[in-house]
Amino acid sequence: MCELLAMSANTPTDLCFSFTGLTRRGGATGPHKDGWGVAFYEGKGVRAFHDVDASANSRIAEVVQTSPIKSEVAICHIRQANVGEICLANTHPFIRELWGRYWVCAHNGQITGFRPAPGYYEPVGSTDSEALFCDILNDLRRHCDRDTATEVIVGRLVERARSYARQGVFNLLLSNGDWLFTFCSTKMASITRRAPFGPARLKDADVIVDFESETTPDDVVSVIVTEPLTTDETWDIYQSGEWRLWRQGEVIMQGSAGPN
Amino acid sequence: MCELLAMSANTPTDLCFSFTGLTRRGGATGPHKDGWGVAFYEGKGVRAFHDVDASANSRIAEVVQTSPIKSEVAICHIRQANVGEICLANTHPFIRELWGRYWVCAHNGQITGFRPAPGYYEPVGSTDSEALFCDILNDLRRHCDRDTATEVIVGRLVERARSYARQGVFNLLLSNGDWLFTFCSTKMASITRRAPFGPARLKDADVIVDFESETTPDDVVSVIVTEPLTTDETWDIYQSGEWRLWRQGEVIMQGSAGPN
Repeated sequence: MCELLAMSANTPTDLCFSFTGLTRRGGATGPHKDGWGVAFYEGKGVRAFHDVDASANSRIAEVVQTSPIKSEVAICHIRQANVGEICLANTHPFIRELWGRYWVCAHNGQITGFRPAPGYYEPVGSTDSEALFCDILNDLRRHCDRDTATEVIVGRLVERARSYARQGVFNLLLSNGDWLFTFCSTKMASITRRAPFGPARLKDADVIVDFESETTPDDVVSVIVTEPLTTDETWDIYQSGEWRLWRQGEVIMQGSAGPN
Repeated sequence: MCELLAMSANTPTDLCFSFTGLTRRGGATGPHKDGWGVAFYEGKGVRAFHDVDASANSRIAEVVQTSPIKSEVAICHIRQANVGEICLANTHPFIRELWGRYWVCAHNGQITGFRPAPGYYEPVGSTDSEALFCDILNDLRRHCDRDTATEVIVGRLVERARSYARQGVFNLLLSNGDWLFTFCSTKMASITRRAPFGPARLKDADVIVDFESETTPDDVVSVIVTEPLTTDETWDIYQSGEWRLWRQGEVIMQGSAGPN
């Protein structure tokens, strides 16, 4: 399987603390050593890093851990391969352009033997995750356009997610750079940090951060993960079938597709 | 304007030497300080780095300079902005998926007021370069398919390039991971290194490499650039309108669209 991490913030914020915690699980405190990737939106652009090395030992991961790349939406994935060989083409997050925006996706789970309908978007690698992402985008392209209301787009995403979750495990992070759609099939949790900010301690590394010193009183920063990253904060656990749409650090829509 | 660098090799080869020379021109020995990017194919996957900082001072560029990322096709670009603001979305190379492969493109030049026909691929940023890339892919998607012979695809590319070069400056690097298409509107040069390998000295940095110690006798590695990178080798200068298709370090097709 693998682990997921996303951030939604109302001001460009770095991911160094959470990324440091997650990437320790890629070969040090966890078994997810079969590559990692992260995508940071900067305006409409995306800065992405992908590596087939274990993140705990990756020189590029070390640079990302210590470079304050600031973003309002970021998506990260560490991989323990099940479907698809260990190679760069199979490393999440996956990126495609739709309606003049980059869409970024990472998936946790497995839908054995998933066969997408043919469409414009095609997977490059051999994971079910990338095939699912292409299937989602093909569905949006067929049924929506750039002016379709977010509610309608999200409705379609929920419908697809419900269908996939019935076929296997489908925990999803998906963003178009404006909003971040999150779907929990089996595991997902979030935390929203806002004033008054306090300290937090990572589970996986001997690192404490004092968010007070790194933020302004108006900052709202949410982190969404498959497994909580800190020991001294209360994470909000998603129910099976629950989805939340994040924008600028806040949940702007949410609901349930029902338990699987 | 900007500068371009590509590599085509018959065995996975690192780009450290050439990349070091080129990136010095991004704010140190040259004025191309408005961002840089590089894409390395690894199998069907692509490892890309983009940065809006000057490459001569970029921490990520330093990691790429000193990490032997091995690839058979790589495309690199350093930017001096003319059309489009300095931002990540405007940083080459641009990447899109077509027929289950990633296509990568970098462009040197300017086609003022270029207005592409609407199509499936759309630019995310505001450069004429990305609009041209989308126009090329839309043309291929309309007129070809995954089984179209390379000769036919290249014929269409040459036709498009000829048309663009009449409207402005259009030096192009384009790859689908299998082959590398290069088109010279005003400036391009290449060098093919094969046994017996010798030393080479960079123009832009006090660096000499002895390729003999880093290669095997069967290696064939070609480098294609807008401005030669070394002082003690003879570069093969393209004519205006000339194109060459590279695969595994060799020119496999070439021709001329005529001078502009």
